[in-house]
Amino acid sequence: MAFTTKATIASFGGKLLKLSHQAKSTNCEMGLNLYLPPQAASDSGKKVPVLFYLAGLTCTGDNGAEKGFFQHGASQKGMAVVYPDTSPRGLNIEGEDEAYDFGSGAGFYVNATKEPYSKGYNMYTYITEELPNALFSSFKQLDSSRMGITGHSMGGHGALTLFLKNPGMYKSVSAFAPIANPINCPWGQKAFKGYFEEDQQQKWKEHDASELVKQWKGPLDILIDVGTGDNFYKQGQLLPENFMKAAKESGNDKDVKLRMQPDYDHSYYFISSFAEDHIAHAAKHLLA
Amino acid sequence: MAFTTKATIASFGGKLLKLSHQAKSTNCEMGLNLYLPPQAASDSGKKVPVLFYLAGLTCTGDNGAEKGFFQHGASQKGMAVVYPDTSPRGLNIEGEDEAYDFGSGAGFYVNATKEPYSKGYNMYTYITEELPNALFSSFKQLDSSRMGITGHSMGGHGALTLFLKNPGMYKSVSAFAPIANPINCPWGQKAFKGYFEEDQQQKWKEHDASELVKQWKGPLDILIDVGTGDNFYKQGQLLPENFMKAAKESGNDKDVKLRMQPDYDHSYYFISSFAEDHIAHAAKHLLA
Repeated sequence: MAFTTKATIASFGGKLLKLSHQAKSTNCEMGLNLYLPPQAASDSGKKVPVLFYLAGLTCTGDNGAEKGFFQHGASQKGMAVVYPDTSPRGLNIEGEDEAYDFGSGAGFYVNATKEPYSKGYNMYTYITEELPNALFSSFKQLDSSRMGITGHSMGGHGALTLFLKNPGMYKSVSAFAPIANPINCPWGQKAFKGYFEEDQQQKWKEHDASELVKQWKGPLDILIDVGTGDNFYKQGQLLPENFMKAAKESGNDKDVKLRMQPDYDHSYYFISSFAEDHIAHAAKHLLA
Repeated sequence: MAFTTKATIASFGGKLLKLSHQAKSTNCEMGLNLYLPPQAASDSGKKVPVLFYLAGLTCTGDNGAEKGFFQHGASQKGMAVVYPDTSPRGLNIEGEDEAYDFGSGAGFYVNATKEPYSKGYNMYTYITEELPNALFSSFKQLDSSRMGITGHSMGGHGALTLFLKNPGMYKSVSAFAPIANPINCPWGQKAFKGYFEEDQQQKWKEHDASELVKQWKGPLDILIDVGTGDNFYKQGQLLPENFMKAAKESGNDKDVKLRMQPDYDHSYYFISSFAEDHIAHAAKHLLA
């Protein structure tokens, strides 16, 4: 479905487009931001790679575009950045707006199989299929053969799992304070209980980065940053050590870099401080 | 009066301190953000220069710290950044919270002489005297001999007027979409009518950058950015051409650079896109 452009905003020499489109997979209108760097804002006919940034709990596509500072590095490298929303909106499911960590703003990048959320909480299909297909058919300057993915917290979980579930689809992956082992943390357990049927424990593992990494074959170059002052890390919601342990035990840890950043918290002050490193990590693969 | 540190946040290798203190000039508790770059966050004993960023209408000290992208360049240059609030808060003056462009969030960096605002709307004294004095006595790593000033919109007016009214106090000045001729625009006329007595027309000129620049003696190196897509510019609220004309007529325009930035609006997307240029402009003088 074509996009409606609600605003075009000049940013770091390129254009930030505030878009919306009617999505089939999520059964509602979805908003997002698309950053076109100077290299793509012009009509040079040159195609640019695309980095997807998946946001965390309570966020929309606006948080990263306003406070992440990915545009700064993306404009220098010539990379488009897509900032999707984090869930369907307005499906009028009873209780969907009641919790900050479940329902609206908390789609967890899975396809819900359990009623009533199965009627539209299909962020996995939306992010991996419907959204990229729509973008590549509407914006010819985006190179469908060069997609990268990153994300924060719930979105870091999304980035890692979408990458690991779809070998070859994304050329780069990184994460900021990811929920790296959802089946073993309160946030993930609450979400998976709500989105999946009781008898689908296997589904949980299929959306857990620390389980998926065990099955990975081939090279695996991942950059992960986590702040030592991150309260959600301290509370055991992120568990990056479990991901590193699983990567190591499966022999996939050679190029997996977990950087514990002294004193940094879980906020966009943390993300913006390292956004340039993650853009550089993506560029290593997308602009190779 | 000593500061209360409400939060210490890691940002770009330095620390962002969320501070508050009881201010005499504004007769209330004032909040602000102070960014200490890595060079000052350590106990090296080395002093760093200080850039004051004055925010615009409706803002607090948080907007620039979250969305201005100044920390990125300040951490590289070794420059502290102060993000003050834009007015007193909670003085319980009838109607002070009713308009977005007058009263709270709209102090206009003047000392009000008209009742009831004269009881605390003294942002001129707060920014030029009380705040810097308090900062320099509490934070020994800040170099009181190297202050620079910049700001956005109403804060751009503040930066230009505070610089021009106090020769030698600030070593650098720049502005983003400043209200450059307030006595001739609706925002400025409304504010000055409300803060100054009827018989004090002279006061208006004393707080108008386009009037003050005529009296300037000596070198004047100013960087001003304005977006051509800025609706407030189009509505005649900013009038940067009037400032340039006055600078030219008084022979002060040699190093006054007004850059009209194609398509940029009045938002923090605009500010963040050029924050690095303004940090570099300040560094040219503060780190000379």
